[in-house]
Amino acid sequence: MLDDQWFNEAQTATGTAFSLKITRKLHEEQSEFQFLEIYETEQFGNLMVIDGCTMVSTRDNFFYHEMISHPVLFTHPNPRNVLIIGGGDCGTLREVLKHPGVESAVQIDIDERVTRLAEIYFPELCESNNDPRADLKFIDGIKWVKEAAPNSVDIIIVDSTDPVGPAEGLFSADFYKDCYKALSENGIVVQQSESALLHMKILKEMRAEMQAAGFNHQQTVFFPQCIYPSGWWSATMASKSDLSKFREQDATNKGFETVYYNSDIHKASLAMPEFFKKAFA
Amino acid sequence: MLDDQWFNEAQTATGTAFSLKITRKLHEEQSEFQFLEIYETEQFGNLMVIDGCTMVSTRDNFFYHEMISHPVLFTHPNPRNVLIIGGGDCGTLREVLKHPGVESAVQIDIDERVTRLAEIYFPELCESNNDPRADLKFIDGIKWVKEAAPNSVDIIIVDSTDPVGPAEGLFSADFYKDCYKALSENGIVVQQSESALLHMKILKEMRAEMQAAGFNHQQTVFFPQCIYPSGWWSATMASKSDLSKFREQDATNKGFETVYYNSDIHKASLAMPEFFKKAFA
Repeated sequence: MLDDQWFNEAQTATGTAFSLKITRKLHEEQSEFQFLEIYETEQFGNLMVIDGCTMVSTRDNFFYHEMISHPVLFTHPNPRNVLIIGGGDCGTLREVLKHPGVESAVQIDIDERVTRLAEIYFPELCESNNDPRADLKFIDGIKWVKEAAPNSVDIIIVDSTDPVGPAEGLFSADFYKDCYKALSENGIVVQQSESALLHMKILKEMRAEMQAAGFNHQQTVFFPQCIYPSGWWSATMASKSDLSKFREQDATNKGFETVYYNSDIHKASLAMPEFFKKAFA
Repeated sequence: MLDDQWFNEAQTATGTAFSLKITRKLHEEQSEFQFLEIYETEQFGNLMVIDGCTMVSTRDNFFYHEMISHPVLFTHPNPRNVLIIGGGDCGTLREVLKHPGVESAVQIDIDERVTRLAEIYFPELCESNNDPRADLKFIDGIKWVKEAAPNSVDIIIVDSTDPVGPAEGLFSADFYKDCYKALSENGIVVQQSESALLHMKILKEMRAEMQAAGFNHQQTVFFPQCIYPSGWWSATMASKSDLSKFREQDATNKGFETVYYNSDIHKASLAMPEFFKKAFA
């Protein structure tokens, strides 16, 4: 049995659990929106937990942050204005700002406490927070997108928690319709879309809602993410226009450091497992 | 905390643990070689555990069995004689025998009890055990390879447990030298090679030992495997000859069912993460 030297995320819905050995709890608080915990782990650096779910560890967050950012940014022909909904740990913002063509990156997380804790416990993820192109807002992202000027955003990255609690409204056709309106001509929305092994129901519903909002082009990106259920995660891109090409040459000559992503990985992440292809045929 | 309704595999070496919710223990025994347990899980079907490590579940074994078999079989120009070392659950044998060109598949697991339990608790994995091309032996695979006729085998699949206990000798240059001798001109050995997130030391040592045995061409295949540490697993191919091409047309028109593998996934599984590329540059 795992004693109190382990942080356990037990998922009753899927009958799976993932645990990290911890050395101590560094912080806990009930914010206005969520219960936030920070642990020091034995081998994964620091760990942020929101409402009992692992969110980000020092050691393996690079998979998620790189794969929710670079594929979509290298797919859009010329992304200048990027909006991040959620993403309070600022790791996605950091990856987005590695792209020199990005002129503005607005990050809207409803819970300011997530960012304040990330600044203390994950300072490396926050190293671009003072970039003049970054704008951090702590307000309701759903409302912000609804009121955004039409055609004003090139990319919307929905870097949210699971579709329960504060993030539930981010998985609905109403929200995607507002995204559609706010996006420019070649605009793309990308959203974390759970595990294709454990959450096909969520993936199917999400793609159907995106379709209902007018996004005729969709593509799911697959990548490892050790601390998330099943260790295999995904993000789904939806666009008004064709998604089948990406700026491969730019990705190959990206001129910035990554740990997981490169242009080969970009292409590879789009390959559809046989069961997934059949489900969406 | 996780109570006794969960099977936990806690890995002290990596500070991670993975657990499945169980409904009951179906069987346990100490074989001549290992401690074997079978659980009925809530959502993953049956689970086989060897010496405390999860080996195979009904629900997610397709990743591993397909990815240790089909990439190597579609890389070799004309595989006829296949040798499986380990693989006692017979899932790899089943995948190998889906290839109509295979004339003989010899499976050598030192522990007959693994196969006898698989026949009871994983009958679907054993459905090709009576194929006339199959030959199941329960002897020492290392010794068998050492004494094999030179140039007699096209593919050797090392489907082993971790490099401790009975499988330790399967990760050494001596064993790879015997493989080299037993393999035919375009012969390939493929071996499960742990997690690139957690076990880079093992991967580096293994590839160095393969190189020392004369295998100048190596390629690592990456794939999800929920019940193994980190959820992200790998297999490494080593060959006397070029591995950079595969029979893509044959893979596309494979004519048999798979759950994960297809020709797009084949290509995708070979993409090297940036950190991996740097480690082996």
